[in-house]
Amino acid sequence: MSSYIVTGCAGFIGSSLVDRLLQDGHRVLGIDDFSTGQRRFLEKALENEKFLLKEIDLLDLEALKGQLRGDYEQVFHFAANADVRFGTRHPRKDLEQNTIATYNVLEAMRANGIKKIAFSSTGSVYGEAQVIPTPEDAPFPVQTSLYGASKLACEGLIAAYCEGYGFQAFIFRFVSILGERYTHGHVFDFYRQLAEDPTKLQVLGNGKQRKSYLYIQDCLSAVLLASGKAEGKVNIFNLGVDDYCELTQSIGWICEELRVSPALEFTGGERGWIGDNPFIFLETSRIRSLGWAPETSIREGVKKTAAFLRENPWVFQARS
Amino acid sequence: MSSYIVTGCAGFIGSSLVDRLLQDGHRVLGIDDFSTGQRRFLEKALENEKFLLKEIDLLDLEALKGQLRGDYEQVFHFAANADVRFGTRHPRKDLEQNTIATYNVLEAMRANGIKKIAFSSTGSVYGEAQVIPTPEDAPFPVQTSLYGASKLACEGLIAAYCEGYGFQAFIFRFVSILGERYTHGHVFDFYRQLAEDPTKLQVLGNGKQRKSYLYIQDCLSAVLLASGKAEGKVNIFNLGVDDYCELTQSIGWICEELRVSPALEFTGGERGWIGDNPFIFLETSRIRSLGWAPETSIREGVKKTAAFLRENPWVFQARS
Repeated sequence: MSSYIVTGCAGFIGSSLVDRLLQDGHRVLGIDDFSTGQRRFLEKALENEKFLLKEIDLLDLEALKGQLRGDYEQVFHFAANADVRFGTRHPRKDLEQNTIATYNVLEAMRANGIKKIAFSSTGSVYGEAQVIPTPEDAPFPVQTSLYGASKLACEGLIAAYCEGYGFQAFIFRFVSILGERYTHGHVFDFYRQLAEDPTKLQVLGNGKQRKSYLYIQDCLSAVLLASGKAEGKVNIFNLGVDDYCELTQSIGWICEELRVSPALEFTGGERGWIGDNPFIFLETSRIRSLGWAPETSIREGVKKTAAFLRENPWVFQARS
Repeated sequence: MSSYIVTGCAGFIGSSLVDRLLQDGHRVLGIDDFSTGQRRFLEKALENEKFLLKEIDLLDLEALKGQLRGDYEQVFHFAANADVRFGTRHPRKDLEQNTIATYNVLEAMRANGIKKIAFSSTGSVYGEAQVIPTPEDAPFPVQTSLYGASKLACEGLIAAYCEGYGFQAFIFRFVSILGERYTHGHVFDFYRQLAEDPTKLQVLGNGKQRKSYLYIQDCLSAVLLASGKAEGKVNIFNLGVDDYCELTQSIGWICEELRVSPALEFTGGERGWIGDNPFIFLETSRIRSLGWAPETSIREGVKKTAAFLRENPWVFQARS
């Protein structure tokens, strides 16, 4: 049994990780401010005596320092502003909830003598990648979104703490993650539109945007494997699947799952929104070399997500 | 005549830029909080009616928004925590004075409709570069210092503002800059030691650390040329010279200028301090392709710096 801290423990990925860690018999201290996290995602965890929940805003460094404890051996820092799309409407959000929050987590770890951190970064840090599929050591990218820029800032801070304070880090650059508890992003938006009016669906862009998705449980398997196995000081891994789909394909799978046939209205253009990457497709041989491979296809992932949304209509109220 | 804003206008590079811009007949609004900047560096500028000085802390976003004005066409954002070496003693400093201050500058520009920014970044963003000399599109680096990480965070923010808000940026990754008004770094430290006791000199590391230095006026020529000529959205340029020296060579030139012969005491090791890059040597063909070339050798630069320090002993009091 090990002891772990999970920030963003009530979020999509965080809460799924909490359940996996508890299932594996570990002790978990979960931290969330419930600004976007859902208490219902922790229902099962809260029944487990090995789970301890602390409601803390990561921007409150002193509170955070007071609640972390050195007998927890690693932090999974998965709290983030995941609202990639509306970055330009509130640029401060990425700065505070990603960059400054990460700095605070690192400082609170340092104050408590915790030196291992796993971090959820993003394939968005590659900007408009010049090499596709994009490897971890792709040419030095130019940022195209406030979200990507803030995640890159976090990566830099974490790596500097490894060098300066003897931390060890596992940094994961995710493609979009799908699956149960998925509560933002385009599958969510499409589902909501179709729930309101199954006869039509508005699609940002031309629908030809290519997307690569990873299923949540495959993602967590990679995170847990790498955190246990990687031995470097700063271990950076792309996480994704080896194929991709076009937006219209994933719409087809959603419609198939929901048994609807909407008329599609495209807003046009290659990008869904300013700063949207037309294509994030990651080269994953580094994580595969540790013995990981995804088990769920993009199609299955999209369909599982649509099924989860169908079975959990409350998430739409919770988010609105 | 154009109108420019210079942040960090009382610093080494900022004040030198102010003088160059005024000399070229431009109007300049200088901003500094004088936390490390020197009023004496602005003596000449303050005699010029085209120069306006505002004492503002860049962390005060509202004050900054109120003082920038849209009739200034470009910001040279040169304010920074330049204390590279002691990053691990006060990690918040790089976060605040580099990352958050840059965010505030960008927000104040956006509020005032100013869309062109030149930014002083650093070759430290390449971490332990895998390719030397290091080109701008070197493999995605892992950060090794809080300083480099914070500058990379600034670059990312700036690039995201270009994409999201239609800004244009000129980002300069400097090697160490030397010359008149140089008030931090190893030539400064060596000079101070020798002024106190010319018989011995303590050198961090083994003295074999290779360093590439650029003379301040060559640096400014590149900055001004690129800001006027580069047409991309996000223009990134390495600035440096095509050769390098070892620390012991530069010590020799300082001693030659000061006519002293100290006994050298090396602390040992390949690095001067934790997070120090053993070697920053940049590939500069991109800026050279615009017609720039440095005119001052490393040796001349070091000697001019030592001469400046000899003639301006007040800078040691000002910094202590």
